[in-house]
Amino acid sequence: MSGPAPPRFEVIGVTGIGEITAGDRLGETIVSAARSQGTAIEDGDLLVVTQKVVSKAEGRLVDLRDIEPSPLASELASTSGRDPRLVEVVLRESRSIVRTDPDRGIIICETMHGFVCANAGVDTSNVPGEWMVSLLPEDPDRSARKIVHDIAEAAGADVGVVISDTHGRAWREGLTNLAIGVAGLSPILDYKGTTDMSGQVLSVTAIAVADELAATAELVMGKATGVPAAIIRGYAFPAGPGDTSDLVRNRATDLFR
Amino acid sequence: MSGPAPPRFEVIGVTGIGEITAGDRLGETIVSAARSQGTAIEDGDLLVVTQKVVSKAEGRLVDLRDIEPSPLASELASTSGRDPRLVEVVLRESRSIVRTDPDRGIIICETMHGFVCANAGVDTSNVPGEWMVSLLPEDPDRSARKIVHDIAEAAGADVGVVISDTHGRAWREGLTNLAIGVAGLSPILDYKGTTDMSGQVLSVTAIAVADELAATAELVMGKATGVPAAIIRGYAFPAGPGDTSDLVRNRATDLFR
Repeated sequence: MSGPAPPRFEVIGVTGIGEITAGDRLGETIVSAARSQGTAIEDGDLLVVTQKVVSKAEGRLVDLRDIEPSPLASELASTSGRDPRLVEVVLRESRSIVRTDPDRGIIICETMHGFVCANAGVDTSNVPGEWMVSLLPEDPDRSARKIVHDIAEAAGADVGVVISDTHGRAWREGLTNLAIGVAGLSPILDYKGTTDMSGQVLSVTAIAVADELAATAELVMGKATGVPAAIIRGYAFPAGPGDTSDLVRNRATDLFR
Repeated sequence: MSGPAPPRFEVIGVTGIGEITAGDRLGETIVSAARSQGTAIEDGDLLVVTQKVVSKAEGRLVDLRDIEPSPLASELASTSGRDPRLVEVVLRESRSIVRTDPDRGIIICETMHGFVCANAGVDTSNVPGEWMVSLLPEDPDRSARKIVHDIAEAAGADVGVVISDTHGRAWREGLTNLAIGVAGLSPILDYKGTTDMSGQVLSVTAIAVADELAATAELVMGKATGVPAAIIRGYAFPAGPGDTSDLVRNRATDLFR
């Protein structure tokens, strides 16, 4: 053995969180579930929490039986056999529609937050009740800050938080987890001005570490395994107040809208 | 403590790999560098290896002084102040041009492999010599299989391999690592037919785990830190022969080309 210790970190899923309902203090729930599995949350941990439990804690659920579809929603729904009330909720959650493929029932939206994704993040999976759907949190950075705060109170630990959601991509098959909210970290790590191994200055390499952290956590979360939070331990994330809008490309420089 | 052990895995950067040159057996080099830092590669490990060292081992470097730019390359280069010989190499490595922004010198290409990315993966960073640029491996799945084979020979360990590269995305700022080659694993994990926590059947949730593994590894690699390989240990990746084309969206169903 020689040289400095290699860089390493660990990813630990938090199990036993159970069903979350409106008003739950998610930070406390995570600290307590982690303790029950023998994991004490520590200073410098990075917590990734799925959008679904955040939305549930914030009461961001809608009962489709309460929704009156607009003519546009009914029209978009008719070609694809989707529920027009679900399409109506999607339209209400959208700032703009980026693309539709009526035959396949695909609606790619820009959300109020600026995220471009299918169905504006409106989701029917992992929501109790046949007619209930979940909406994205209103302000996911605020949600993340609340979790940071509640974890500090419950565990005395100073952590970073990423709220994750599962999105598709242009050009590539398969979904990946990415960040829709952050607190306590800068979502982008900028290597600008650093030199590479050959001594050349790297001109423009800004890495979306918040998205990579969300993707990392998905590997212990799976989709139906009851692991809505994960601890990333040992990764020195770039500290910062956290502003997810740093991850949203400005329309003016976006070649694909 | 109660319940089953929480899901967890570990990520370990491999340092001390040094400069790679054409003909190097990368699998052997990685095994030996890992040993030097006290890490024995084990059955079930998933190795992520950056494109740059794979390209170097395969001699996929071009000297710009040998390149004669075409009129098209000269024209594309002239508005942005880029080297016309570099633009020529980009055009040669492209199957099609998806978008250009001449003012900002951006060329989004479809590579011969079907990947959509800036500059067809042609890269000037971390390449020795002022005029040398690196190309993507010709067949990154074959490159990955060779590394799997060489690691089995050198360490007696049966591993999966992901070749990673750093790409931009539509709609989002910041680059992330993703998979351009795989061996020993299925790049997509399909939850189709499994039930969610509420007992509803998940209809279409296919996760691009190879991309998430590549993103995970980036967190220990950084951009200029001399860590071109990482071991992901304890994650039960979906076994499979490995075919990166599973990650490439068919043009016919792609709404953004």
